Amino acid sequence: MQVHTYARNASLCERAKRVVPGGVYGHQSAAQLPEGFPQFFARGQGSRVWDVDGNEYIDFMCAFGPIVLGHRHEAVERAVTEQQQLGTCFNGPTEYWVRLAELLVEITPHADWAWFAKNGTDATTFAVMVARAHTGKKYLLRARGSYHGSAPWCTPKPAGVTPEDTANQRFFTYNDLESVQQAVAEVGDDLAAIIVTPFRHDAWFDQEEVDPAFAHGLRAICDETGAVLILDDVRAGFRIDLRGSWAPLGVAPDLSAYSKAIANGYPLAAVVGREVLRAAAQEVFATGSFWFAGGPMAAAIATIETLRATNAIAHMERIGRLLREGLDAQARSYGLRIRQSGPVQMPFLTFESDQAFERSFTFTAEAAKRGAYLHPWHNWFLSAAHTEEDVETTLEITDIAFQIVRRVHGEG
Amino acid sequence: MQVHTYARNASLCERAKRVVPGGVYGHQSAAQLPEGFPQFFARGQGSRVWDVDGNEYIDFMCAFGPIVLGHRHEAVERAVTEQQQLGTCFNGPTEYWVRLAELLVEITPHADWAWFAKNGTDATTFAVMVARAHTGKKYLLRARGSYHGSAPWCTPKPAGVTPEDTANQRFFTYNDLESVQQAVAEVGDDLAAIIVTPFRHDAWFDQEEVDPAFAHGLRAICDETGAVLILDDVRAGFRIDLRGSWAPLGVAPDLSAYSKAIANGYPLAAVVGREVLRAAAQEVFATGSFWFAGGPMAAAIATIETLRATNAIAHMERIGRLLREGLDAQARSYGLRIRQSGPVQMPFLTFESDQAFERSFTFTAEAAKRGAYLHPWHNWFLSAAHTEEDVETTLEITDIAFQIVRRVHGEG
Repeated sequence: MQVHTYARNASLCERAKRVVPGGVYGHQSAAQLPEGFPQFFARGQGSRVWDVDGNEYIDFMCAFGPIVLGHRHEAVERAVTEQQQLGTCFNGPTEYWVRLAELLVEITPHADWAWFAKNGTDATTFAVMVARAHTGKKYLLRARGSYHGSAPWCTPKPAGVTPEDTANQRFFTYNDLESVQQAVAEVGDDLAAIIVTPFRHDAWFDQEEVDPAFAHGLRAICDETGAVLILDDVRAGFRIDLRGSWAPLGVAPDLSAYSKAIANGYPLAAVVGREVLRAAAQEVFATGSFWFAGGPMAAAIATIETLRATNAIAHMERIGRLLREGLDAQARSYGLRIRQSGPVQMPFLTFESDQAFERSFTFTAEAAKRGAYLHPWHNWFLSAAHTEEDVETTLEITDIAFQIVRRVHGEG
Repeated sequence: MQVHTYARNASLCERAKRVVPGGVYGHQSAAQLPEGFPQFFARGQGSRVWDVDGNEYIDFMCAFGPIVLGHRHEAVERAVTEQQQLGTCFNGPTEYWVRLAELLVEITPHADWAWFAKNGTDATTFAVMVARAHTGKKYLLRARGSYHGSAPWCTPKPAGVTPEDTANQRFFTYNDLESVQQAVAEVGDDLAAIIVTPFRHDAWFDQEEVDPAFAHGLRAICDETGAVLILDDVRAGFRIDLRGSWAPLGVAPDLSAYSKAIANGYPLAAVVGREVLRAAAQEVFATGSFWFAGGPMAAAIATIETLRATNAIAHMERIGRLLREGLDAQARSYGLRIRQSGPVQMPFLTFESDQAFERSFTFTAEAAKRGAYLHPWHNWFLSAAHTEEDVETTLEITDIAFQIVRRVHGEG
C-alpha cells in the first residue's frame, strides 16, 4: 500500500503562514492534526477527495458535514450550473427562494415558514434573536460545551469576547434535565429560549445520543415557561431525519437552525419555525450581501429532493453500520478497546486507554497516509456516495492503522 | 417606450408571504419600494438584469454592490466554473486561499495578512473582536446611523437585541472630530477600536464624502490611544481604490473589512490587517461551514485581477460622471432641484423639496417601469460593464421619469 507524500501541501502551508494569521484557522485548520493530514485540497468526486499533492482519500469528513450526497453530485451541480449560467446574485431573490421555503415547510412538520442566510452561526444567532423578540425576555440556556457557532455570544474561545457578549446565558448539562431546571430557576421569569443540539456532538468527546426523556422534558419546560425551544440542527440536519432530527422522538422544536448539508456544499443556512414566531421573525432585522443568491438555493432544492427520492439517510445508516461493525471487529482482533459513538452516519471513534488522544492521533494519521480521511477529535460524516466497497477499502487501511497503534502504544 | 408588467412577480410575492416571514426580508425586500419595482429576478448579463416577468433593466444597484464587473463576467465565471468542476468544499481550503491572501496583501499597502469569511457582518464582527483581543479593552466607537452589519451588536433595528449586545459602544457624528474626542473621553482608558466607513453612505440620507481632516484625525486618535482603526470598506471596497478606500487620503487603517464586490457576486468576505494585529487575529476563534470553499476565492482573484488590469475604477468614474451630469441637466430643465451625492461610481439622488421621499418614489418607480433600476433611498452602484450607451438609454428613461415627477408633484 502506497504511503502519501505532501511536498506541495508543505509549500502552500509555508506560504499561508506568511499571509494568513496561523496559516489556516477555524475548524479546517490542520494545526491540531497529526502529520499525515493534508491542509490543502484540489478536488472531490463522490466519496473521494484529492489533496494538492494528488493523494486520494475516501472522505469520511465530507467538508465537516456539507457534502451529504457526495462531492459533485450530478443533480446538484446541474441545478447550480443552470442558475449560474443566468447569473446568481441580483437585486432580489430568484424564484428558488419561494420554492425552497415551500419545500422546507412541506418536509418539516413543525415549520410554517423558512428564513435563509449563509452561515450556521447566522441561523443560530437569528433564532436566538427571534426568541428574544417573541418573548420580550433575554436569557438563553445552552448545554455546557455545546458548539452553536463562532459569533461573540457563542465562540468557544475567549479572545475578543467581552463579558457582556455572554451575559445573558446560563448553562446546563446535556441529557441532565435537573441541571436544566436549576438553570431555569436561576433566570426566574426572564427565560427567552433553550438552544440544544439533537445529540451531543462536542469535539474532543465521545458523542452521546439524546435521552428521549430529556428532549420531551425540554419541550415541557418551554411549554410551561413560554420559552422558545431552538433545535440547533446545523451539524446533524439532513443526515438523521428529513423532518428534523428530533422528529423520530416526537419532539417538535419551535425553531430549527440548519446549514452545512442543506445544499451539498454550496453556502446556505436556514431557520424554520412555527406560526406563532412568524411576527417576531419578521420584526428582527438580519440580512447579508449574498443571502438572496439563486445558485445555493437551487442546490438546496436538488439536494433535499435527491435525499428524499433516494432514501439516502437509510443508505448512509446501512453503510455507517458496516463501517462501525468492521472497526469494532478489527479493534477487538488487535486487543484494542475502542468506543464508537453517535449515529452510525455521523460516527466517531476513541480509544479507551488514551490519555491525550495519542492512539487516536496515530490511528487517524496512519489511515490518512494510506487514503482514509478520518478525524481524531471531531465526529465524522458519511455521505450518500459511500459504498460497501468504500467500507471494504477503508477497513483494509484501518487494519494497518490498528496494527501500528498496537505496535506503537501496545495492547489496551 | 414599453411599460413593464409584473404578473409572475405578483404571484411569487403571494407565495413568498405564506412561507417566509414578510415574504422577503432585509435590504433586498421590495416592501419599502414603490410599485414598479420587481421583487424576484431571473437573470443578469453585463449591465442588465431581467426580472421573473422578463422585464429588462439597466442595473444601477448591482445586487446592492457585489456585481462590480457586470453580471456573468467571463473571467470570473471561468474561474468559478473551473473550480466547481473539481468540487468546491473540502476538508481544507484550496490553493486559492493562499493566492488570494497573497494578492490582497500585495495590493493593500497597510495589509500584512488577510482573513476570509462569508458575510460583511462576519468581517466587521471579526475586526472588532481582533481589536478587543489586541488591546484588552472593550469599547467601540462608531458613527451614529452608520451601518456595519446585522448581528446583534450592530443591527439597525431593536427587535431581538439585548442592552448587553450594544453596551460597549459609544457614538460620534460622521465628519465631526470633536464628537469623536468627546466619545473617547467618555470611555476613558477602555477604548478598543473606532470603526468607520470610508464615506457616509447611510440609507435614507444624502451621502457625504469624508473630510480628509476627519480621517487623519481618527488615525491620530488611534495612534495616541492605542485603539485600532477599522475601516469598514464592505460597501465601498473595490469601487473607490484597489489599495483601500482611504489610500487616496494617505490614511492607513489598522484593519479593513471587505465583502460585497470582492468576488463579483460570489459569497466572500475578508479582513486585512497590519502585522501588529496578526497575533490577536490568530487568537480569535471564528469559522464557518463554507469559509474555505475554493469557488468564491477563485472568483475573487479573477475579479481583483480584472479590476486592476482594466483600470475598471477609472471607467466607472467616467461613466458615473456622465450619468451625474446628465441627471443634473435634466432635473434643471424641468425646474426640479435635486442633490446628487457620494462618489460618482456609487451615486445617489434626492429631491430637495421632498418631505418623505415622495418625488424619489415617483422618479425611481417610473424609471423602473421603463427599464432603469435606480433606488429611492439607498445609494446606487455602477459596474465596469456600464457603457456610455447605457447612460444614454438611462437618460431617455429618466427624462420621462422627471417629466412625471414634475407633472405629479410640481416644480421645486
